[in-house]
Amino acid sequence: MFEQVSQFGATDEGGVNRPALSMPHLEARAWLRERAIAEGMVVEVDGAANHSVSLEMPGAESTLLIGSHLDSAASGGRFDGALGVIAGFEVLLTLRDESVRLDSHLELIDFTDEESQLIECLGSRALTGDLSEEDFKDPRCGRDHLQKAFVRVGITEESVLHAKRDPSRIAGYLELHIEQGPVLKNQAVQIGVVTGIVGIRTFRLRFFGQQAHAGTTPMADRLDAARGASSFLILANDLVEESYSGCVMTIGRMEFAPGVTSIVPGRVDLFLEFRALQEEKLDCLENDLLRLAKDRAEHYGLSLEIQVLSVVESVRMYPRICEAFRVSAQELDLSHTDIVSGAGHDAQLLSQVTPAGMIFIPSTGGSHNPQEHAEWVDCVNGANVLLATSVKVGV
Amino acid sequence: MFEQVSQFGATDEGGVNRPALSMPHLEARAWLRERAIAEGMVVEVDGAANHSVSLEMPGAESTLLIGSHLDSAASGGRFDGALGVIAGFEVLLTLRDESVRLDSHLELIDFTDEESQLIECLGSRALTGDLSEEDFKDPRCGRDHLQKAFVRVGITEESVLHAKRDPSRIAGYLELHIEQGPVLKNQAVQIGVVTGIVGIRTFRLRFFGQQAHAGTTPMADRLDAARGASSFLILANDLVEESYSGCVMTIGRMEFAPGVTSIVPGRVDLFLEFRALQEEKLDCLENDLLRLAKDRAEHYGLSLEIQVLSVVESVRMYPRICEAFRVSAQELDLSHTDIVSGAGHDAQLLSQVTPAGMIFIPSTGGSHNPQEHAEWVDCVNGANVLLATSVKVGV
Repeated sequence: MFEQVSQFGATDEGGVNRPALSMPHLEARAWLRERAIAEGMVVEVDGAANHSVSLEMPGAESTLLIGSHLDSAASGGRFDGALGVIAGFEVLLTLRDESVRLDSHLELIDFTDEESQLIECLGSRALTGDLSEEDFKDPRCGRDHLQKAFVRVGITEESVLHAKRDPSRIAGYLELHIEQGPVLKNQAVQIGVVTGIVGIRTFRLRFFGQQAHAGTTPMADRLDAARGASSFLILANDLVEESYSGCVMTIGRMEFAPGVTSIVPGRVDLFLEFRALQEEKLDCLENDLLRLAKDRAEHYGLSLEIQVLSVVESVRMYPRICEAFRVSAQELDLSHTDIVSGAGHDAQLLSQVTPAGMIFIPSTGGSHNPQEHAEWVDCVNGANVLLATSVKVGV
Repeated sequence: MFEQVSQFGATDEGGVNRPALSMPHLEARAWLRERAIAEGMVVEVDGAANHSVSLEMPGAESTLLIGSHLDSAASGGRFDGALGVIAGFEVLLTLRDESVRLDSHLELIDFTDEESQLIECLGSRALTGDLSEEDFKDPRCGRDHLQKAFVRVGITEESVLHAKRDPSRIAGYLELHIEQGPVLKNQAVQIGVVTGIVGIRTFRLRFFGQQAHAGTTPMADRLDAARGASSFLILANDLVEESYSGCVMTIGRMEFAPGVTSIVPGRVDLFLEFRALQEEKLDCLENDLLRLAKDRAEHYGLSLEIQVLSVVESVRMYPRICEAFRVSAQELDLSHTDIVSGAGHDAQLLSQVTPAGMIFIPSTGGSHNPQEHAEWVDCVNGANVLLATSVKVGV
């Protein structure tokens, strides 16, 4: 099944390109629906286009969700998200085939837009009631793109807001994911039990200089916005690398205005994000980085405009579920370690309303990148831990 | 007339936005045609959409061109180009009204796309025979944009190539332009006689690192393409500012790939240009800057791909025409100085096939920028020098 789903949006580089609600993403979801129906299971799609495959348990009153996402980052890898969906599907099929009886219904859920290309974690935020009308007004993909995507799958802003579920009917949330980082591989550990997910703060730093003609403006007369922005980029990287062990900061995007070869840029927009598990560390990072940006702007005679784009608070995974994961790994004779997730996941949202837990398996080739890879034996190990833990938590 | 033409594509900031063959540009040209026809003059449009207004002299066998351009840079100023067209038009009207007889026909020419937003100096290169089919294959604006623009004005690649004129029928080329720089203003000189136009070399430097997830990739494990590119930007600016007096270099554009906030950029494309009047200086700049780029890539563990985008050789203006400009200024009791143009102009192309000369008048507010401004008295001074010189050169 994993090989089959990897064909949708497959790229020449060996990854997949399945942005949320793009045609390849919709094809992958159609495949999931068909496959589940062929297995005789119930498929449901909610108002946020989240896809669910259910295994009902007689007499159960709440539902244990097992999920991840079939959408990918632009030119992403095959494993990020899809592995968790396929593993969850296998858990359901196995429990059905073995006629295992649990106290909770089981539901595989494929969340819409975990990669946040339309609206940050659209699907899991809809389900947990974290969205409001405000979120549709200026989405990161642009309103036009969002509306077209909604029309493509027949959902509306209203239906998304109505996708909120009653938390009392949710028994918990489990997710299997590749680590997308080097820690488990370097330590040769088979299962990472996620104890928390970092907080992320994202800013737009807008450096203003003076737009000028590249030929007629002597070097000394310029106020080049790119010098301030680039100097900040260099020193901010150095600062975090040297003084903030375990934290990360990234500048993934800089936009020059007007962005023409023959014009000294009058404005550069720099997009900054940084991550840490402790809120105090996030505060320190914010202070240090914004102070540095102001210093760099001043140094080059520029002005600076700072805008907070988003603040995602760090969360802790549910201790009882973490423990269930550890016990399952031990039972299966798999080595395990506690780990902090540097990436955001739907589990972050789910943990606000229900006991949530995640495991990682080792992966190479980084993440959001076609080279991302997990060994099949690790995938199977992870799926087995997920299965064993489902039985523990679902009881 | 200048106030009238400034209305086309006028922006809230006080400039104009008239990219070549855009609707506002076509409106400005329609205005020029109507105005010339209302004056009873002959209007012609060639296969490159260059617009000409002619004042014929009985018995003349060649034509003195006076020109500039009505297209503007994106969100540019009102004076760049338009002033030279209006001044040239006034020269023709004055000579006609005064029934001045010259040995050459006079032709005001409004060149297409001096600002090089479709194909670098499309109009003057077509007229001087500097274009080939190759130039249409991968234009800087993209083929689709180019084809749409051509359709809009009813020209074709073939007609552009057929716009070449016989140089033996061209007596010379004169152009009035704002300086777009601070030199004349700072020296309080009224007329700048352009003796040469700098050469310009443009490169794309492509820094390759490793695309990676912003949350899961520790700082020390990254190969961030943006660090190499930004470090180059800082040091290249410092180098040219400190060691290349009178030369300029500009990085007007950097593109991050994939350009997503949450992804460490795997590739950054940096667009570099530098300018100097002496070819030896251009060689030195090229050596120093490319060596620096290689050093920065190596320092950050990146690879580097260097692509030459364009090489424009420096040119000298025609000495006899420079002298005619100087004498005209003296006759009109205007102070003058020799000056090098740091900006490219159509005169650069024309100088390859005919005696060409340019004058600058003082301007403020830089260039390619809505704040660009010239005092009206300076505009009139420039037009008068242009008129007096037309009479000298046209004889």
